[in-house]
Amino acid sequence: MAVIKGGEGAGFRLKRGDSVAIVNTHGSQVVDLFAHNAADVGETLSIQHSRNVWYRMQPRAGDQLWTQLRRPILTLTGDTSPGVHDTIFPCCDATRYVQLGVKGYHRNCADNWREAMAQLGIDPAKLTVPTALNLFMNVPVAPDGTFKILPPVSRPGDTVIFKAEMDCLIALSACPVDMLPLNGPDCKPQDVEYRVMAA
Amino acid sequence: MAVIKGGEGAGFRLKRGDSVAIVNTHGSQVVDLFAHNAADVGETLSIQHSRNVWYRMQPRAGDQLWTQLRRPILTLTGDTSPGVHDTIFPCCDATRYVQLGVKGYHRNCADNWREAMAQLGIDPAKLTVPTALNLFMNVPVAPDGTFKILPPVSRPGDTVIFKAEMDCLIALSACPVDMLPLNGPDCKPQDVEYRVMAA
Repeated sequence: MAVIKGGEGAGFRLKRGDSVAIVNTHGSQVVDLFAHNAADVGETLSIQHSRNVWYRMQPRAGDQLWTQLRRPILTLTGDTSPGVHDTIFPCCDATRYVQLGVKGYHRNCADNWREAMAQLGIDPAKLTVPTALNLFMNVPVAPDGTFKILPPVSRPGDTVIFKAEMDCLIALSACPVDMLPLNGPDCKPQDVEYRVMAA
Repeated sequence: MAVIKGGEGAGFRLKRGDSVAIVNTHGSQVVDLFAHNAADVGETLSIQHSRNVWYRMQPRAGDQLWTQLRRPILTLTGDTSPGVHDTIFPCCDATRYVQLGVKGYHRNCADNWREAMAQLGIDPAKLTVPTALNLFMNVPVAPDGTFKILPPVSRPGDTVIFKAEMDCLIALSACPVDMLPLNGPDCKPQDVEYRVMAA
């Protein structure tokens, strides 16, 4: 198992058929998942196009995640959590923290994605930040369409598994939010783990 | 009033402070709205970032629409419709119609956006298709997170008005879907109208 420190990120490659298990070690850490086609990094996981496949706000085990070119990039093959993941919010970025009143630099999921891309030899400045699947993030929607961010309902050790449907680049970000209970009531990002399993 | 034929699109520029009124002439036509910063066309209306402002699935009069750089690009200043608009689906594209079983070319919102950009002197091949606000599209979400596409609940003459918060390029697409009741029970795209009002 590789460890991602709370608030930090990681990037790695999956060959078609490989899988990655992402473990919510302490139970309440949100993990943003980004995915790119390795052969054309401008083709990325698109939450909007994936919802057009699911006809549901959240994916369940067996569901494919699609790119903006309407092709499968990942399949969610397993999920031991209650299945509460967010597809409503964009990933956090430096501007968001400024707007929340933070002074100075604050780590953020967009920069974690940039660092992961750079580690994989991709210049992130040439790409738009893609939409992420916000694993374990709990954003219940009320009947009137309003929503709020609550602490995750996942539990220590809860694990999601994705299988690659094409050769792809993956970025994970253990979300750095620490002024809202997004990552648990103590507002403290925690480490998570992942393991790549070859086909 | 300028007319957009059912299934076709239009592109125009707004100066900061200008407004555009979009009229659902026959009541049941979905209109995809795209917006770009005129000074940097890679900065676009982002539905995910706009939801982060609204904390609601749909905008109401008074709400700002934001770009992926977390800046306001438009404000919804008026809406005589019941306020049912979609932010869940991506715009339709040529691939979507192939996947729905259509033989040959079918008009689509992505190509209408491309035509609008080209008319405005922008090469769409250099851009990713942005997220659109799907005006009047009726996609009720059930308590279990599933959703379906129903005919619009808007009425003939219903009008939305947007004010430009920066100089911007707008593309509108009278959605060409004709195999689902997305544009009304008769599955027939209808013309809509728009009028630009200078500040």
